[in-house]
Amino acid sequence: MDNNYRKDFPLLLTREEKGRRLVYLDSAATSQKPLSVIKAIEGYYRNYTANPHRGAYTLSEDATGLYEKAREKAAHFIGCNNPQEIVFTAGTTEAINMVALSYGRAAVKEGDEILITVAEHHSNLLPWQRLAKEKKAVLRYVYGDEQGQISLGEWEEKINSRTKIVALGHISNVLGGINPVEEISRMAHRHGAVVVLDGAQSVPHIKINVKELDVDFLAFSGHKMLAPAGIGVLYARKGLLDSMEPLMLGGGIVEEVGEQSVVFMDAPWKMEAGTPNVEGAAGLAAAIDYLNQVGWTNIHNIEKQLLEYALERLNGLNEVEVYGSKHPENRAGILAFNVKDVHPHDVASILNSYGVAIRAGHHCAQPLMKHLGVSSTCRASFYLYNTLEDVDIFIDALSKVREVLGYGT
Amino acid sequence: MDNNYRKDFPLLLTREEKGRRLVYLDSAATSQKPLSVIKAIEGYYRNYTANPHRGAYTLSEDATGLYEKAREKAAHFIGCNNPQEIVFTAGTTEAINMVALSYGRAAVKEGDEILITVAEHHSNLLPWQRLAKEKKAVLRYVYGDEQGQISLGEWEEKINSRTKIVALGHISNVLGGINPVEEISRMAHRHGAVVVLDGAQSVPHIKINVKELDVDFLAFSGHKMLAPAGIGVLYARKGLLDSMEPLMLGGGIVEEVGEQSVVFMDAPWKMEAGTPNVEGAAGLAAAIDYLNQVGWTNIHNIEKQLLEYALERLNGLNEVEVYGSKHPENRAGILAFNVKDVHPHDVASILNSYGVAIRAGHHCAQPLMKHLGVSSTCRASFYLYNTLEDVDIFIDALSKVREVLGYGT
Repeated sequence: MDNNYRKDFPLLLTREEKGRRLVYLDSAATSQKPLSVIKAIEGYYRNYTANPHRGAYTLSEDATGLYEKAREKAAHFIGCNNPQEIVFTAGTTEAINMVALSYGRAAVKEGDEILITVAEHHSNLLPWQRLAKEKKAVLRYVYGDEQGQISLGEWEEKINSRTKIVALGHISNVLGGINPVEEISRMAHRHGAVVVLDGAQSVPHIKINVKELDVDFLAFSGHKMLAPAGIGVLYARKGLLDSMEPLMLGGGIVEEVGEQSVVFMDAPWKMEAGTPNVEGAAGLAAAIDYLNQVGWTNIHNIEKQLLEYALERLNGLNEVEVYGSKHPENRAGILAFNVKDVHPHDVASILNSYGVAIRAGHHCAQPLMKHLGVSSTCRASFYLYNTLEDVDIFIDALSKVREVLGYGT
Repeated sequence: MDNNYRKDFPLLLTREEKGRRLVYLDSAATSQKPLSVIKAIEGYYRNYTANPHRGAYTLSEDATGLYEKAREKAAHFIGCNNPQEIVFTAGTTEAINMVALSYGRAAVKEGDEILITVAEHHSNLLPWQRLAKEKKAVLRYVYGDEQGQISLGEWEEKINSRTKIVALGHISNVLGGINPVEEISRMAHRHGAVVVLDGAQSVPHIKINVKELDVDFLAFSGHKMLAPAGIGVLYARKGLLDSMEPLMLGGGIVEEVGEQSVVFMDAPWKMEAGTPNVEGAAGLAAAIDYLNQVGWTNIHNIEKQLLEYALERLNGLNEVEVYGSKHPENRAGILAFNVKDVHPHDVASILNSYGVAIRAGHHCAQPLMKHLGVSSTCRASFYLYNTLEDVDIFIDALSKVREVLGYGT
């Protein structure tokens, strides 16, 4: 297979690294952008630039149309039929902070429990850690086994009547493990807790239906799903969103302002103070169109094939340890690994000299690193534009790392 | 004069409204983008797309370079020689909320006073209103005369030893009046208050030097100064920034995270949780380059000529009331006005049929509207790409409004 999609990504076709073609394996950090997304943004600047919502002229109405159309697309993309449950944010981080600071501050009291996993990205950990400290609530963790695989039993054991919020990543940005969200939601709701799902790593890669997953909040970012940075989404159940105070206050969110008083608009608009990022929304809409056109089956098949092939070839290398489940069916296209005796940064740096871009570090998941007994790892992550040839170049380069450093292979 | 700059803005050259060329007079809401900015963003997507800061490969280092170079440019642009005093935000609104929620919540106590003007945009009013309510502090206003002109005497009278924060817009987004910030800073500091300057309407239009203005915080947005939406700046004195808790928590801002503990990085990075908006920063850098190339003298002369000519022609129209100072030297290129007996939305709508884009409404400044004794106004605002011909088309169309509606002219 050499897939059909790589050709849609201008950077992948032209960017070289050390005279070689770039093999981009860091999509879990950010994704490349297809030409259609670049063109959508450029088209906005050339034809529709205006401040939406508050203009009494056609250009502004056009911008409003683009922005609200993007909201509808984002809603449908995650299986939600009410665009008023979609808040545009700057990204996943802002979305989760919004839930912690607006919903969390009102809902969590002393002695309550907030439950997260040890594998959470710092953006789905630190807001809860702060909230717990502020409210004298307890931040509890589920840990899973030494590979980070969490059993339903551990969830069952730790969710109780004191649990007010269960916050978890759908797919770990390190281990690639997929959490059984539907079951966890069911348990959480049985105990009256709300579920906050960090979809940064899942929404770009697998079909999501918030109603089937039955989560109360879902956060995700544009830039990891072929769209621009600076735009993301907070999905929230209408009733919860209605009850939330806006985190940011400013223009475009009020019915009436007095010197000492304010009446807010309805959700979602009350949550979006300031000039909307219309170009970001237009880019997100184009990215959704692109992903819909490729289709989830194709995306799934491509990523599955890449993962299986990479795991197979990795297993053929001595002195490489892969973290997380050994079973491809339990994981997404993210591979964390280490090379024996070699610091992950040196691995990444040597791979870079072969044109291969992988990440090295703690991946904003330090508690997980501690749980795995390492301080950092390498990470390769795939998206629909990667090819089996990318995997070959990656593994061939990886097989030379210890040699380059003077170790035996 | 037909200026040289209009040709750099693709939308202005091609967009038509009702078969006529577009006359864009809503730059106080958002600005059009020059080709160089559009190309900078496209260039980022085509050549440099990566998550900065945390990558151990060249592409990511390139993105880091672009991002931090933009920070340096933003610093120099406002006369600040320390890039570490520059926090990238989503825009002015987020920047001001950050100050209110991070600095303000720690600094303001019961009985303290926060002083703002009645002309503030809601984004520089509502965060203070909420803070005052939360802390049982007092939100006080300076009002100025019936034209909104505030005397230094009124500031002097209202700043006292209880004043902890003085927050003001540099240039009113409705009246275009320019506040004497240096003098106000001096008074505020004499009483131990900090000064928060909303530079959304000034940074794009006049040369700013934060050290001469001697403000403690300055907020501004990219999208009003030829750059993308979704990127803005909070300038804060280093010492203040160091003392502030981050508002948003997440990735990229920590030295160390434990399950129940966190150690943050230094400012400004601790304030920028989540994947940085590199394309926004690249666009902002290109916009700064463009503005620097045109030069403040040119920008000032163009806007002054447009304003004087527009005021002169407006004075020739019966039944049009212009708000704010009648003296062009006291104001920037923003004109709020009403046509007798005609609702501002009808004025804007009729102007739209002549291809002229102006804004109508309360301009996110409802307390000012009340102070002026109106519920809304029309607003025309200029930028360096406007021409005297734009003013002619605008005034010619305006002169027909009452006629179109069947009134005498």
